[in-house]
Amino acid sequence: MSVVVVDVMPKPEILDAQGQAVADALTRLGVSGIAGVRQGKRFELQVDGPLDQTQRERIEQAAAQLLANPVIEQYEVHVSQDSLS
Amino acid sequence: MSVVVVDVMPKPEILDAQGQAVADALTRLGVSGIAGVRQGKRFELQVDGPLDQTQRERIEQAAAQLLANPVIEQYEVHVSQDSLS
Repeated sequence: MSVVVVDVMPKPEILDAQGQAVADALTRLGVSGIAGVRQGKRFELQVDGPLDQTQRERIEQAAAQLLANPVIEQYEVHVSQDSLS
Repeated sequence: MSVVVVDVMPKPEILDAQGQAVADALTRLGVSGIAGVRQGKRFELQVDGPLDQTQRERIEQAAAQLLANPVIEQYEVHVSQDSLS
């Protein structure tokens, strides 16, 4: 079993109202020094067996087409766990 | 500037309908071997200057109170970048 993580975050130039609300709330809760917060999505894909090259490429494509909106979001794909079983 | 990342994911025993929909869509898009997908949230907190112990503890508390719902979600806090400036 392999686990592939896709992190999707709003691009830096995009206004992130949710992140701003979280930043305000953190400051109210007494966390000092918060300069900003960005809120995004995290996907954990469980893949049967070890990850092959084709699967990795298809997941990269799917990240761009399905999981992220490349107009306003940036994404990062990384294998978090790669078992040999 | 330090960046603290808080990853919030649904607990394994909680039904994740969004993740299931993504798993189905990935399979339709031709990604083989997808055993399951979990969808969660990722927060990137930008903190001024280096992170001190108090800030770290407050962020841990805020993660449990504000960012995650501990009844249905689990979370992980890690410092992604810790500058000395």
